[in-house]
Amino acid sequence: MTLKIFGHQNPDTDTISSALVASDIERQLGHDATAYRLGEINAETRYALDHFKVTEPELLTSLNSGDQVILVDHNEKQQSAEDIDQAVVTKVYDHHRIANFETEGPLYYRAEPVGCTATILNKVYKENNLTISKEMAGLMLSAIISDTLLFKSPTTTEEDIDAASDLKTIAEVDLEQYGLEMLKAGASTRDKTAEQLISGDAKTFDMGEKSVRIAQINVVDVDEVFNRREELEAAINAEIEAEDYDLFTLIVTDILNSNSKVLALGREFSSVERAFGVALDQNTAILEGVVSRKKQVVPNITKALS
Amino acid sequence: MTLKIFGHQNPDTDTISSALVASDIERQLGHDATAYRLGEINAETRYALDHFKVTEPELLTSLNSGDQVILVDHNEKQQSAEDIDQAVVTKVYDHHRIANFETEGPLYYRAEPVGCTATILNKVYKENNLTISKEMAGLMLSAIISDTLLFKSPTTTEEDIDAASDLKTIAEVDLEQYGLEMLKAGASTRDKTAEQLISGDAKTFDMGEKSVRIAQINVVDVDEVFNRREELEAAINAEIEAEDYDLFTLIVTDILNSNSKVLALGREFSSVERAFGVALDQNTAILEGVVSRKKQVVPNITKALS
Repeated sequence: MTLKIFGHQNPDTDTISSALVASDIERQLGHDATAYRLGEINAETRYALDHFKVTEPELLTSLNSGDQVILVDHNEKQQSAEDIDQAVVTKVYDHHRIANFETEGPLYYRAEPVGCTATILNKVYKENNLTISKEMAGLMLSAIISDTLLFKSPTTTEEDIDAASDLKTIAEVDLEQYGLEMLKAGASTRDKTAEQLISGDAKTFDMGEKSVRIAQINVVDVDEVFNRREELEAAINAEIEAEDYDLFTLIVTDILNSNSKVLALGREFSSVERAFGVALDQNTAILEGVVSRKKQVVPNITKALS
Repeated sequence: MTLKIFGHQNPDTDTISSALVASDIERQLGHDATAYRLGEINAETRYALDHFKVTEPELLTSLNSGDQVILVDHNEKQQSAEDIDQAVVTKVYDHHRIANFETEGPLYYRAEPVGCTATILNKVYKENNLTISKEMAGLMLSAIISDTLLFKSPTTTEEDIDAASDLKTIAEVDLEQYGLEMLKAGASTRDKTAEQLISGDAKTFDMGEKSVRIAQINVVDVDEVFNRREELEAAINAEIEAEDYDLFTLIVTDILNSNSKVLALGREFSSVERAFGVALDQNTAILEGVVSRKKQVVPNITKALS
C-alpha cells in the first residue's frame, strides 16, 4: 500500500517541503510513498520549488478507508485532510502543540519544539544514515528560512540554525541572499484578492469553548495590506458568519522589521486587547516584536480567552 | 526547576524503569530531574529493582501549577497524575496510541510502535552519545522482558529483541533465566486481595461514548485466579458501580502458554463476545493466543463497541 504523506491545509513552504522530504525518506527506507498537498502552492513555495527544480506534490482529493498516511507539520484534525478520520495515521513529524489528535493504535510520533519540521527531518536522515540530495537539502533549507523568517522569529532554535548551516552547503546557495529573495517572492500582496489574503495561511484553533481563526501574511509593506482594510473586513466578516468563529485575527507581519499589525474581528475581539496589552483602533493594533503565530499569538490569545 | 518524570497509574515494570531511565538521561543532558511513581511498586518490578540495587522512585503526591513534567509510557490524561492539568508537559516517551492528550504549546514527543518504552529510551541514549550504566541497562532489559512477556507478546518488534540483546551484556544477566525469574516473581496471586488483583494493572479507556476498564494479570496458574471468581466479581461490580464503567474486563494471561482467560462484567459485557468471537460462560471465556491488552484487547473491544 502506498503511504500518503501530506501537511496542513493552506500549505506553506515547510508543509510542502516536509511532505516531499518525508516521502524521500520513506522511499529510501524501502517504503512506497507519495507526497500530496491539501491546497494551492503559494508564491514563496513556488519560488523554492522552481529554484531547486522540484515538481510540486499532487493535490489530495480524497482519502479511502484504511489509507495509511503520514502527517507532517500538523496534527490537529481541523487543519488536516477533510476525511482524515478514514485514514490510519502511522507517523507524524511535527513541531506544533498536540491537540484534537487521537489514534486507535500505537504509531510513530516525532515532535520536537524546534522552529521547523524540516529541522527534525534533517535529523531523521542522519539517524538512519540516508543520503540528502541537493534538491531535498534545498527544500529543507527553504522551509527553515520560511518558518523562522531567516532566524528572526522567536521560534528559532540553535538546531534550526545548525541545520540550515549544514544544508546550505549541500543546496549550494548563499543563505542570506537566497533567503531574502525567497521571502520577498512570497511577500507581495497586490495580485491577491482579500479572500486569498485572509485564507492563504490561516488556521483554526479550538480554545476552550471558542473557535478562533488566525490568518497570517508575511509582507515587506504593511500599508499595502491595510490600505485595503475595509475590503479585508468584509471578507473576514463573511467568514465569521459562515463558520461561526468567535474570533478572527489577521496578523500582518513585517518580515524586515520583525513586527506585526493585527486586524481583529468577531465577538471575542477584545481578547486580542487583553492578550497583547493593546487598544484596538479601527479594529487594528501594532504588535511590537510579534512575528510568531505559534509562540506568541496562539498562547497569548489562549490565555486571554481562558 | 526540577523536571518531574513519571509513568502511568498502577505502575508496571516499564513505567517505573522508564521514569528512572528518563531521569538518568535528563541528568546526563545537564537537566535537574527526579523520577516519581503514581502508585505502589508491584512484585515483578520489586524483583527488578532489588536485582539491580536501584531505589524505587518517590510517590508523587501532587503537582503544582506550572510544574514541568515528562511523561513516560502513557499519554492519556485518565491514566496520568490526577492533577496533570496543572503541569506543563515538556516531553513524552511512549509506545501507546495517542488519545485524550492536549498541550498548549509545542513539546518533544517521541512515540514509536515498539513493544516497550525502554526500547525507545535505549535509542535516545545512543543518539545523544550518553553512557548506559549496568543499573539502567538492567532496568531497561527488565521493562522489555515485562512488556513483551519474554518476546512472546505480539507487540514484540525486532527493535525490542535487538535492544534486549545489547542490554543483557551491559546488565550482566542471562536473559532467559533472569527473565523467567522476574516474570514468575510477579505472577503469584495468592497473597493479593481481589481488589488488588483487579486494580494492580488496570487502565481506563474512553471508547466512543463508553468507559471501559481493562485490568490484566500475568500468571503461571490461571485456575488459582478463577477459583476466586465470585470474590472477583463482587469486587469488579463494586468498581463498576462506583465509577460507572460500561464494561470491566479482567484479562488473566498465562505467561507460559501465551493464552488468556477473560472475566467480563458491565452492561456492555456482550461486546467482549463480539470482539473475540466467543461465548461467555459464567462471565468468562478463553481467549486463545491473546496476551496483549494494547494490540489485541483494546482494538478488538474498540471495534466491537463502535
